[in-house]
Amino acid sequence: MSKALPSRSENYSEWYNELVKRADLAENSAVRGCMVIKPYGYSIWEKMQQTLDKMFKDTGHTNAYFPLFVPKSFLELEEGHAEGFAKECAVVTHYRLKTNPDKKGKLMVDPEAKLEEELIVRPTSEAVIWNTYKNWIQSYRDLPLLINQWANVVRWEMRTRLFLRTAEFLWQEGHTAHATAEEAVAETKLILDVYANFVENFMALPVIKGVKTENERFAGAVDTYCIEALMQDGKALQAGTSHFLGQNFAKAFDVRFTDRNNQLEYVWGTSWGVSTRLMGALVMAHSDDDGLILPPNLAPIQVVIVPIYKSEEGLQKIDAKVAEIKQNLQKQGISVKYDNRDTQRPGFKFAEWELKGVPVRIAIGERDLENNVAEVARRDTKTKQSIGLDGLTEEIIKLLADIHTNIYQRALAFRNEHITEVKTYEEFKEVLENKGGFVKAHWDGTSETEEKIKEETKATIRCIPLDAEKVAGNCIVTGKPSAQQVLFARAY
Amino acid sequence: MSKALPSRSENYSEWYNELVKRADLAENSAVRGCMVIKPYGYSIWEKMQQTLDKMFKDTGHTNAYFPLFVPKSFLELEEGHAEGFAKECAVVTHYRLKTNPDKKGKLMVDPEAKLEEELIVRPTSEAVIWNTYKNWIQSYRDLPLLINQWANVVRWEMRTRLFLRTAEFLWQEGHTAHATAEEAVAETKLILDVYANFVENFMALPVIKGVKTENERFAGAVDTYCIEALMQDGKALQAGTSHFLGQNFAKAFDVRFTDRNNQLEYVWGTSWGVSTRLMGALVMAHSDDDGLILPPNLAPIQVVIVPIYKSEEGLQKIDAKVAEIKQNLQKQGISVKYDNRDTQRPGFKFAEWELKGVPVRIAIGERDLENNVAEVARRDTKTKQSIGLDGLTEEIIKLLADIHTNIYQRALAFRNEHITEVKTYEEFKEVLENKGGFVKAHWDGTSETEEKIKEETKATIRCIPLDAEKVAGNCIVTGKPSAQQVLFARAY
Ligand SMILES: [Zn+2]
Ligand SMILES: [Zn+2]
Repeated sequence: MSKALPSRSENYSEWYNELVKRADLAENSAVRGCMVIKPYGYSIWEKMQQTLDKMFKDTGHTNAYFPLFVPKSFLELEEGHAEGFAKECAVVTHYRLKTNPDKKGKLMVDPEAKLEEELIVRPTSEAVIWNTYKNWIQSYRDLPLLINQWANVVRWEMRTRLFLRTAEFLWQEGHTAHATAEEAVAETKLILDVYANFVENFMALPVIKGVKTENERFAGAVDTYCIEALMQDGKALQAGTSHFLGQNFAKAFDVRFTDRNNQLEYVWGTSWGVSTRLMGALVMAHSDDDGLILPPNLAPIQVVIVPIYKSEEGLQKIDAKVAEIKQNLQKQGISVKYDNRDTQRPGFKFAEWELKGVPVRIAIGERDLENNVAEVARRDTKTKQSIGLDGLTEEIIKLLADIHTNIYQRALAFRNEHITEVKTYEEFKEVLENKGGFVKAHWDGTSETEEKIKEETKATIRCIPLDAEKVAGNCIVTGKPSAQQVLFARAY
Repeated sequence: MSKALPSRSENYSEWYNELVKRADLAENSAVRGCMVIKPYGYSIWEKMQQTLDKMFKDTGHTNAYFPLFVPKSFLELEEGHAEGFAKECAVVTHYRLKTNPDKKGKLMVDPEAKLEEELIVRPTSEAVIWNTYKNWIQSYRDLPLLINQWANVVRWEMRTRLFLRTAEFLWQEGHTAHATAEEAVAETKLILDVYANFVENFMALPVIKGVKTENERFAGAVDTYCIEALMQDGKALQAGTSHFLGQNFAKAFDVRFTDRNNQLEYVWGTSWGVSTRLMGALVMAHSDDDGLILPPNLAPIQVVIVPIYKSEEGLQKIDAKVAEIKQNLQKQGISVKYDNRDTQRPGFKFAEWELKGVPVRIAIGERDLENNVAEVARRDTKTKQSIGLDGLTEEIIKLLADIHTNIYQRALAFRNEHITEVKTYEEFKEVLENKGGFVKAHWDGTSETEEKIKEETKATIRCIPLDAEKVAGNCIVTGKPSAQQVLFARAY
C-alpha cells in the first residue's frame, strides 16, 4: 500500500508484476520458477475452478486422478509429444536422500537409490492416461470416456513470470476417448465453446475462436483449437486450447476397441486444458493504474462496506444498519465484506479495496444513516452515487450486472479497434510496431513463411479464425495464393 | 461383476484389494506405487473435500498453494523433520531430457541439465511454507495466519496398497502461525475436533482422540494429536493428525514477530492433514462381502432406481413415474440415478449397485405402479420393504438418516467390543493374537518398552487417549509405574 503502482503506460510489464504481488495474488517462491498463490489470488482461482467444474459436469464429464510421474519410456511412445516436452522436464532420478558423511547435518542423494527408469514430473498427462485407457476400453460400450483432472504440472522454463509462465502451474486437463473421428471433433469444439463461454461470461473477456497452424499445434495433436484474447498492451494471450488427437495416442499406446460391427479399431481422442495462466489474463485484461478490476462473477468479495464514523456511538449505529444490509445482500448470493477495522482510516481502506479490485464499495456515514442513503462507488468507472437504503439490494444487483457488461464491452471495443487488416508486409510491420493488437493478413500456408515472420517481427499466427469469412488473396510475404486471412500478434 | 469377491473372513486383505478395484474406486498404475483414482472413487473423494473445505472455511481458514518442490537445503533446516523424510523422497536432479544418440527414438537425461541443488518432491510442505511465512509475518497484526492447501505429496514407499499406502497421495495440509503457544495448541485441538466431527458424522466412523507418543510423533512436532479408528479386521487406522509444532519451524526458518510489547519473538506453529487414506478407511470400516457400504452423507449416488418391466409400453409408464420420483428426491438435495440401461437385467443391476455401495435402491415394476408402491431396499441391512409412492420422499429421507445411524452404531459397537483392558503382557499378546482391536494397558512411558513391544508383537501405541480417566498402575512389561493406560493396536 506504500507507494503507487508503476503506471501501465510507463512500464506495462512492471505494472503487472507489482500488481500481482501487491494485490496479494501471488509471489515468486524460493524454488526457482515456482510461484506461491496467496490466499486472495487462490480464492479467485477457486471461483474459476468451481465454475468450470460445473460446466464440465453439465456436459457429461467426470473427474479422476492420474499419477504425477510419467515413466520416460511412456513419453517416448508418441514421437511428436516426446519432442515437444523432452526439453523442459523435471526428472526424478533417485528415491532417497542420506546423511552426508562429510558434512554434519547435511543431506545428499543416496547413489544406491537410483531409479531403474527415470520418472518425469508430468508436463501433461496424455501418456499416463492413454496407457491407463488401454485397460479401460475394450468395446464401443466403454465409449465415450469423458474424464477431466485438476492437477499441477511442471514445464521447466528459463524465464518465468507470475501466472503467465511458471515452472509449476495448476490446471485442468480433459482427456476423452471416442468411437469415431466425428464424435471426437465434436467434443473438441464443444469444449472450445465451454471455454469461450467461461472466459466471456465470467472473466468478462472477449475471445476469438480459431485453429492453430501446424507450427503452433500441441505436440501430438492433429488439430489444436484455441481461444485468443487481447491484453491492454496489445499483446495476445492464448486463454485455452482443445486438441483433436486423432488416433495418435491410441496408436502409440495400442488402445483399440471392438465396434458395433465387431471390428477392432483404434480409439479417437481429445485433450483440453486451461490453467492458472487465466489469472494472468484476468489481471492484464481489465485492471488499471490503481489496481485490479475484477469481474463480479469471479470476485471473491463483490461488495465491501466501509463505515465512516467519528464516535463509538456513531459506529454502533452504523454496525446495526450494516448487519441488515449485509444480510439482505447475502440472501441474494452476493459476497460481502464489512471492513470495520479500527486500525485503518477510510481513505486507506478505499485504496486497499481498489487495489484488490472489489467491484462495489459502499461507504456509510452517520449523516447517511439519518438520510437513509449510502454512497456507492463502482470500481470499473470510479464513479460514485448516493443510493437510498430501501432499494439498495436491487440497485447492487443491477450494478454488478452492469459492471460485468461494462468491462466486457470495454475490452471488446479495445480488442475490435486492435484488429487491423493489412495488405503488405511493410504495413504489417508498421502496425505491429506502432499499434499492436491482432494483424489480419494473408499467408501462404507454409511453415517457412510463418517462421520468417516470427523471426523478423516476433509475431506468431495466433489462429485461423473459425468464424471468419473465407476470402482468397495473396500472402503478404511471398505473394503466393492464400485461402483466407489469419490473425497474427505478438503474444504472451 | 464376473465372480464373487473374496470374503472378509477368508482373506480380508484380498477382499479389500479386490473391492477397491471392482467397485471402480482406484487401481494401481504403471508408475510404481502410484494409483489411479477412478471416476467413481474420485467422486467420493470430492465429497470429502467439499465437506472438509467448508469446515475449514467455517473455522476461519483460507486456501492457498505452495510449490511442489522443496530444495534439499530447506529440508535440512529442521533436523527432526529431515530425518523423518529423507529416506523416502523422490529427488529431481535434472531439468531436461535429450534424444539418445545411440538409440533411435529414445530419450536420455541430459547430463548438462543437472540442477545445482536437488529438489525434493514435497513429502509435506512445512519447510517451503515456513520459508514463505518468514516474509509474511513481521508483527502480531499479521497473526494468526490460518492457511490450508489441497495438494499431492510423494513419500516413496516400498510396499504400497491402494489408498492406504501409496507413493503419491492426495491430501490437505493446514499450516498455521500464532503469537502464543496457547493459541497454537487451541488451533491443534480445534482441528482435531473438526476431523473427528467429519469422520463420525460424514464417514459414520467412530474415532478415539488422543496424543501420540514421542516415537510416533510427526517429524518436527512437539505434540501430535490424532484420531484413531478401528477396521473390521481388528486393525487400527490413523484417520487424521494435528501437530503442535511449538517454535521448531519458526526457529529453523527464523520466523519472528514483534509482539504487543514490541518484543521480537519466535512464532508458534501447527500443521494438520487428512489424505486419500480416508478412502481406505471408508471401505474397510463398513463394507461387506457383497461390496461397498457407503455412508449416505458421502455417497455420490444416494438412491438408485431400477425399472422392472416386460414390455416397452410398461417401461414408458415406469419412466414417467420415475421422472416424478426423481424430481421430488432431487428437490430435497438427494442424488438419484435412474438405471434404465436396456443392456442389463435387473439382477445384474442390483448386484452392481450393491457392489458400489449405493445406500438405497428403489425397484419399480408394472404391478407396483398399479398398487402405487415401490420396493425399497437398504444396502446396509439388505432388507426390503414396500413403500407407498405418495409418502416416498419423506420415507427415503428418514431411511438415509437411519442408514447413517445404523452403520455408525454398528461400527461403534464393534469398536467398543474390541477395546480390551489387560493386566499382563501375556494377556496382551493373547488378545492381540486371538481377538485384535485396541488393547488398553499400562506402559512405563519409555521408548525402549514401546520398541520392545512393537518388535515382539507388531503392536504400536496408537495414542494416549484424551478423554480417558487417568488411573495409575504398573507397566505390563517392566512393572514400572504408569500414570494412565494407553491404547495399543496393530495398525495400517
Ligand atoms: Zn487461436
Ligand atoms: Zn491416537
